[in-house]
Amino acid sequence: MTSAPGSPGDVLTLISAGSATTRSDLAKITGLARSTISQRVDALIESGLVEETESGESTGGRPPRQLRLHTEDHAFAGIDLGATHCRIALMDMSSDVLAECEDPLLIAEGPETVLAHVDRRLDELLERAGRPRAALRAVGMGVPGPVEFATGRPNNPPIMPGWNDYPIPEHFEGCAVFVDNDVNVMALGEHRNAYPGTRHLLFVKIGTGIGCGIVAEGTLHRGAQGSAGDIGHIRVSGHEDAGCRCGNSACLEAVAGGAAVARRLTELGIPAESGADVVALVQGGNTQALRLVREAGRLIGEVLASLVNFFNPEVIVIGGALSRVHEHLLAGIKETVYRRSLPLATHHLSIVPSRTGINAAALGAGILAIEHYLSPDNINRIVNA
Amino acid sequence: MTSAPGSPGDVLTLISAGSATTRSDLAKITGLARSTISQRVDALIESGLVEETESGESTGGRPPRQLRLHTEDHAFAGIDLGATHCRIALMDMSSDVLAECEDPLLIAEGPETVLAHVDRRLDELLERAGRPRAALRAVGMGVPGPVEFATGRPNNPPIMPGWNDYPIPEHFEGCAVFVDNDVNVMALGEHRNAYPGTRHLLFVKIGTGIGCGIVAEGTLHRGAQGSAGDIGHIRVSGHEDAGCRCGNSACLEAVAGGAAVARRLTELGIPAESGADVVALVQGGNTQALRLVREAGRLIGEVLASLVNFFNPEVIVIGGALSRVHEHLLAGIKETVYRRSLPLATHHLSIVPSRTGINAAALGAGILAIEHYLSPDNINRIVNA
Repeated sequence: MTSAPGSPGDVLTLISAGSATTRSDLAKITGLARSTISQRVDALIESGLVEETESGESTGGRPPRQLRLHTEDHAFAGIDLGATHCRIALMDMSSDVLAECEDPLLIAEGPETVLAHVDRRLDELLERAGRPRAALRAVGMGVPGPVEFATGRPNNPPIMPGWNDYPIPEHFEGCAVFVDNDVNVMALGEHRNAYPGTRHLLFVKIGTGIGCGIVAEGTLHRGAQGSAGDIGHIRVSGHEDAGCRCGNSACLEAVAGGAAVARRLTELGIPAESGADVVALVQGGNTQALRLVREAGRLIGEVLASLVNFFNPEVIVIGGALSRVHEHLLAGIKETVYRRSLPLATHHLSIVPSRTGINAAALGAGILAIEHYLSPDNINRIVNA
Repeated sequence: MTSAPGSPGDVLTLISAGSATTRSDLAKITGLARSTISQRVDALIESGLVEETESGESTGGRPPRQLRLHTEDHAFAGIDLGATHCRIALMDMSSDVLAECEDPLLIAEGPETVLAHVDRRLDELLERAGRPRAALRAVGMGVPGPVEFATGRPNNPPIMPGWNDYPIPEHFEGCAVFVDNDVNVMALGEHRNAYPGTRHLLFVKIGTGIGCGIVAEGTLHRGAQGSAGDIGHIRVSGHEDAGCRCGNSACLEAVAGGAAVARRLTELGIPAESGADVVALVQGGNTQALRLVREAGRLIGEVLASLVNFFNPEVIVIGGALSRVHEHLLAGIKETVYRRSLPLATHHLSIVPSRTGINAAALGAGILAIEHYLSPDNINRIVNA
């Protein structure tokens, strides 16, 4: 047990869920002593998390004062840093977007340049939303590489030169910062937006590389070292000649990622450099590109078939650049998963394209920040500070 | 939120953890009103879960009465049904074993015969432990086949004729019953006994077939349909000629399970029928058996390498009949996992033989029963009934 029952965090949860709107509601529901309720509520008001109004339904005597979240005194930012873009969503406590922006930005320019850009955009968004900088309570960020979640430091990220071990949270003064791998925040964004009632979901991002975000029992599964979901380097059969940047051969990413498909097209005399080029060729009706994307789907399906047997998810969401041609990709994936997984595990399984689309990462990063900030443990820490 | 903070379940947790030993401790820790505390404690005493003593440290006045779990009024049974055995451990609330037994028993004799045997043994064990049948609060059971955990009914179990959809819980009147797949209860038993502080653990059972129990964030991951961990039918490369009982080919179980290794030995002119025969041959120094067990380890390692990338566990425990020759099996497994998994995921990974041994399933089944019975939600249900 991490906190005593009836803590300020629990009280905030009751107010936030609408279960209690007055002090006497709280006393009735929790069984807490009146003096304890007063102490908890006063602390929440003092920290700006809750406000108490004068209005309320008349019950014959003086109308009871209503408790509600002090939404106006808060803002949360979800930041999606990709290899070549920056998207930011400014959100309120209820995950509603107050303002958002999107710019081209090279992550390879390094943390100082990139975070200075983020700062400028955050100030603009806060101004557009009419909230002071001090209202920014927490920031969530997704980056295209492995991150040690506990410290918010990237861990040898291959496409983020200058970022290794950089203490991202220290850059943002006065607010809580949560940094995670981009696929994890995409999985969280997709889950909370499109599948909030689903217990077990996999979000597979197929871009230049291939990665997977895992939602187990409704929460992100990061694994022991935070490397869970790194499925791009799982071996696929019959491709021993395909060398991978990791030093091994026959890795899924080396045969079915956007870069690998582009390379194979180039070898066939059809110039392509990236996943985006592959998508353009497929959309232009190039049959070789179409064939290779479907074949990539089959190889991804081979790996997913194993993971379906192991993890038994309810939903697999396909996202990332290549998912823009998802009909061909999904055809290949489904063909293999349904052939190779056990019937019990596939009977109710959905394999679907992302519904949240390009905003999944920014929204997911914002939700990551909001959920951590509003967790009872964190609220208790703030209120007791 | 599933229950109001400060519920009877929360109060029991505080008493059980030793955080509160008196009513005034409880009031202090929870902030609950005195009247609420009295109501909660009285309900717990009335349901036989808690007792209140007269003794206590003198603080000048009347010594405060001590609260503690009413251990003597409780017993829990962990039942391990295998293809050819029945083990039962009678346990108290603290998971200490009060009495245990082990018999040969064919699960294929069907539920009536098998459960009648279980009943007789339960009565004997309760008598040996000096507790009445009414003290038996909950039963946990592991069976060698898939189970719908919510209903406790086996789901098309291949080696349990007569058990399909049989309502096992209805057989045990007056106590809560939790039925699960044997690998899941083994994983739970091993985790709680040997690795209680480990967050993410895989328990791989290598017997006639191959299965896996998954502990994620300290709790069993059963997946959407309860089929998670069914790794015996994951495809391994280069064995398309090996047909499997599931109808596919190249399944892990069809090339590396105990029955598969025995069959290959027989083909080489060395008669063997089961995993136990294979173990005997290895222990007798048969070099072909030794070579095939190590090769089986490599194939199992190929699948585990993928799962390490995906799930990032801290510990992989190898159990089941073939693990009795674990040095050869583990050599093959480790060789492949360390070659094929990502360094970040294997840096702190332990791959070890089961420490809990043949008792893992019975202990795990008992722990399953105890944990579900003592969960705050269940306690609240009992106390409010």
